[in-house]
Amino acid sequence: MSSVQPIVWKDGRLRLLDQRSLPHAVCWLECTRAEEVAEAIHAMAVRGAPAIGIAAAYGLVLAVRRDPEAFDRAYALLAASRPTAVNLRWALERMRKLWQQTQHVAHLEAEAVRIHDEDLAQNLRIGELGAALLPEQARVLTHCNTGALATGGHGTALGIIRTAHAQSRIAMVYHTETRPWLQGARLTAWELQQEGIASRLIADGAAAHLMAREKIDWVIVGADRIAANGDTANKIGTYALAIAARHHGVRVMVAAPSSTFDLRCASGSEIPIEERPASELTEFRGLAVAPAGSSAFNPVFDVTPATLIDAIVCERGVILAPTADKLARLLAQDATQAGVS
Amino acid sequence: MSSVQPIVWKDGRLRLLDQRSLPHAVCWLECTRAEEVAEAIHAMAVRGAPAIGIAAAYGLVLAVRRDPEAFDRAYALLAASRPTAVNLRWALERMRKLWQQTQHVAHLEAEAVRIHDEDLAQNLRIGELGAALLPEQARVLTHCNTGALATGGHGTALGIIRTAHAQSRIAMVYHTETRPWLQGARLTAWELQQEGIASRLIADGAAAHLMAREKIDWVIVGADRIAANGDTANKIGTYALAIAARHHGVRVMVAAPSSTFDLRCASGSEIPIEERPASELTEFRGLAVAPAGSSAFNPVFDVTPATLIDAIVCERGVILAPTADKLARLLAQDATQAGVS
Repeated sequence: MSSVQPIVWKDGRLRLLDQRSLPHAVCWLECTRAEEVAEAIHAMAVRGAPAIGIAAAYGLVLAVRRDPEAFDRAYALLAASRPTAVNLRWALERMRKLWQQTQHVAHLEAEAVRIHDEDLAQNLRIGELGAALLPEQARVLTHCNTGALATGGHGTALGIIRTAHAQSRIAMVYHTETRPWLQGARLTAWELQQEGIASRLIADGAAAHLMAREKIDWVIVGADRIAANGDTANKIGTYALAIAARHHGVRVMVAAPSSTFDLRCASGSEIPIEERPASELTEFRGLAVAPAGSSAFNPVFDVTPATLIDAIVCERGVILAPTADKLARLLAQDATQAGVS
Repeated sequence: MSSVQPIVWKDGRLRLLDQRSLPHAVCWLECTRAEEVAEAIHAMAVRGAPAIGIAAAYGLVLAVRRDPEAFDRAYALLAASRPTAVNLRWALERMRKLWQQTQHVAHLEAEAVRIHDEDLAQNLRIGELGAALLPEQARVLTHCNTGALATGGHGTALGIIRTAHAQSRIAMVYHTETRPWLQGARLTAWELQQEGIASRLIADGAAAHLMAREKIDWVIVGADRIAANGDTANKIGTYALAIAARHHGVRVMVAAPSSTFDLRCASGSEIPIEERPASELTEFRGLAVAPAGSSAFNPVFDVTPATLIDAIVCERGVILAPTADKLARLLAQDATQAGVS
């Protein structure tokens, strides 16, 4: 298990590892109000679909501890902080149900801690299930950061790589830098380095060239929302990787906890895609890159259709060649019966 | 015609617009020695396949003016400054032939000026031929910088966009930022802005998402070397764009002067691909992005197979669905008979 703990709840206080300053500085944000948590999510101090769900759950605890009447206001504020990842809403909904039942802050706090602990346990299970799909001496490519920093610990796609590495089955991890926010260059490189996993950073645009020149076994990515038919919203660039992978006969694995599934979205076309400010492209650390007045289009997620995905791995099991039927079947079955569909 | 003149030869002096400081500052390098020209090419103060060919030709003039015995040494130095673009070698070879015939510095200088002037004339012709392939209200995507800055003036792929814009046929130009060197964000944005062409900058990884969500008529790119079968080496990321374009039914146009063809390479697998320092990925303007000690793989070109290219446009004509036969036919015909093969 990884030693990185980006979300720490202790003595009723929430500390968030500020991922904007990594890998150069390890800074912590102390949050005592839901507003601060919402702002940390919006500003990407905490990011990664599972991690923002966990942080938002704690945000609700902070809100009702100050004012038991503040639940709905805090819920709305936190729900609006990022639009694409569904884990955020899933965690908030789970907290709302508990709150409606008990109205006890202590119970609400226990539920947030459970969401946090369960995520870590699910990641470890995802790691086992996903690693089992990899060949010996696997050469994999990952995108963005889906590690301990993006989750309650261990990680989803990077959790699979971590588990496979612990089993001595990883020969090389290529990882994209992941423009514009450089989650790959800054965060994934940092996690891989801390684990001592052999890795090489590439430009996002170099992935297809890499697949043409070297053997890559799997592209392994996370997810921010998975529609009922298996279409997957994930970090911008994932779709391009999946198209290039299919072109080269490289398989594509999506790793996410079942809280990432959104059965209300029949397909990926219903998933809202967040657009962030042009300045994420036109500036770098506040320095202008493009000429003043440049226009930019900055969608930060895209949708990979299920037809380009070879396997979805969640804590309940593995879905090969995902379809709506297979997804529904896996989600309907008892959570203790994890297996391959 | 564009007012940007990145290479200026006047009164026997070579001035190069230093593209490393664009768009923030317009700085000029004064070169009086071939060594300075080679360093400017290697360090990418001057870049773009046609532009480095022109600069290298002037570099030979500078060398022999100091020392008529210095030709071979300067040739070798300049030829080694960048490996992938063949225009560099083509220009040096043309200068060598002239030098072997005359040994006159004035004749050599006239030849360099001719190479420069011809490139501009060829670009204007490429602009006409390529623009004729575009629909009205064209929506195009381009990569890297292939404008006046990359050539003797006007540009190749961006020259086509420039010509089409002058014909009021461009509705929107999307252009990638082009990691790691950001030629798109820094240089193409600058040229498009100077021309008043409607444009939007995207992350390299967002191109496939863009193609899925909006109508794009053509991807238009330049080339650093085109093999005998039409396989095309161009800026890293081009191959990924071509795969995504084919997946979405978007057509791909490659624009380059005929000096970019290298018939000695039967296919793209024979084209050397330059790898540049990891620091281009791990640092930004000297600031570390990735953690210290990170490993990176930084190929700065890739090869797009001819099968993914719908049209190659050079000053001699247009080759649709390029093959070795069509290429050979076009290059064999009289240069005055430009047309569509």
